[in-house]
Formats: sequence, C-alpha cells, structure tokens
Amino acid sequence: MNFKLITLLVVLTASVAAFGQEKHKPKDHNSAVAEKGLIKISVMYPFAEGKTFNMEYYETKHMPMVAGYLGSNLVKYTIEKGIASGIPNQPLPYMAIGTFYVKNLEEYQAAVAPNRDAIRADFANYTNIAPIILVSEVVK
Amino acid sequence: MNFKLITLLVVLTASVAAFGQEKHKPKDHNSAVAEKGLIKISVMYPFAEGKTFNMEYYETKHMPMVAGYLGSNLVKYTIEKGIASGIPNQPLPYMAIGTFYVKNLEEYQAAVAPNRDAIRADFANYTNIAPIILVSEVVK
Repeated sequence: MNFKLITLLVVLTASVAAFGQEKHKPKDHNSAVAEKGLIKISVMYPFAEGKTFNMEYYETKHMPMVAGYLGSNLVKYTIEKGIASGIPNQPLPYMAIGTFYVKNLEEYQAAVAPNRDAIRADFANYTNIAPIILVSEVVK
Repeated sequence: MNFKLITLLVVLTASVAAFGQEKHKPKDHNSAVAEKGLIKISVMYPFAEGKTFNMEYYETKHMPMVAGYLGSNLVKYTIEKGIASGIPNQPLPYMAIGTFYVKNLEEYQAAVAPNRDAIRADFANYTNIAPIILVSEVVK
C-alpha cells in the first residue's frame, strides 16, 4: 500500500470508530429511560381554594436542588402540572407532582435525611401547600 | 486514485452511513420514550382499611383492555404499586396507580366515552376502591 492509502485508512477507521462510540453514549437521563423495577417518590401538591404554586421556581430551583442531593441513585425526575380531574364535576386533585425515579429507597432516604430542613425551608418560596408523598414501585 | 483506493472508499463510506442510521432507530415505545409535553391520565386507587386490589388482574386484563381502546394516541402506559407514604407515620396514600400517556386529551376522551360502561363494569373484578383521576401535562 502506498502512503496516501494508509493515511486514508487511518482517517476512515477513526471516523467509523467515532460513529460507534456515538451510538453507545448513555441516553439522556431526563427524557427516556426504562422504568420497570424503579422506585418512585412522588411529591403531590393537592389543589384547594387559596392554594398557590409557582411552577417556574419549582422547575428551575427546587427540583434541581433536591435532585442534586441524590447522586447516581437518581435515574430521572419528572414534573407534571395538574389540568383537571378525569371525572366530570370533580375538583382538580393535584396542582403539581414532582417525581424522583431512584434505584434504591434506602439510599434515597439516606441522601435526603441530612437535607430535610433545607428542602422544607424552600417550600415557602413556591407554594403554601403541604404535599402528600407516595413511595411506589414501577410494575410496568 | 487507483481502483483499489476507490473500492475502499465506497466500502468505508457505506459503513459510516450504516452506523449513522443505526443511531437514529426509533426507540421502544413501551419502555423508554420522551415524555415532555404529553398528557397523563393517572387513575389513582386510594388506600383505606378493608380496600382490596388485585394487581395481577389489573396488569394482565384491565389495563390492556383500556389501552386497546386508545389506538395510536396512546404513547405508553405504566402501572405502579404503592409501598408507603414518604412522610413518617402517615398512611399509604395509594394502593396502585395506572397511567396513560397520550398525545391528545380530546382524542382520549372520545375513545373512552363509548367504552365507559365496560371499563367501570370491570372494576369489580380487581378492586372495591373508587379511583381518583388526575389529568396532567408533563412539564419536564
């Protein structure tokens, strides 16, 4: 083989290797992961007259703060905004729900415990609702 | 360029193109999809003394039946089993939650309306709980 051919081979092999790596990049953890078997911690804010909820603060400050405590145990977190009850003539059940998907419940509890006061102190910055918290397991 | 060189270029360019296509394959819709912007219909079964819930029937019969009514509007559905309250000394909020992720709320309502009686009649086969239903939008 001549020099030109060898150079070309090196460059093209490197390109193929680069494409291969790209394909095996970990997926964006905040948009698409398999959930089955994970533990969900759902923080649910019940709707009632006079209750307020600042979604912008919740999304940009509160949830990222709590997520930051959870390390690699956190697989993803989601935020949803309540729209209506699915049953006619019933009030909206929840104004908002924030959910952490974690691999291990004990690790979640250990990570949150030393930060509980900071998390609770931040509530007043976005809501006057006392949340309900559900711990559940993703079955399907 | 000689013939060998041209052949090599064609083969390697095809390899690079193949890697590129592999990378853009659609994801498995039942395990991992981007959720942002979707509408969730969460059917939540509150826990109370004397309430029962047959998860096996729910997973293998009821949820597939309802999912079957929703057509291509249904992006995915999930099932979770309540474990505990996340707040010490509080009762379990929900025994189970089934959630449909759909693209369009009106289409969901139109698909469910003619099947509402069949869906309600099936409740007695797995639970004695009257569910709460939350319609929400995935913000993040």
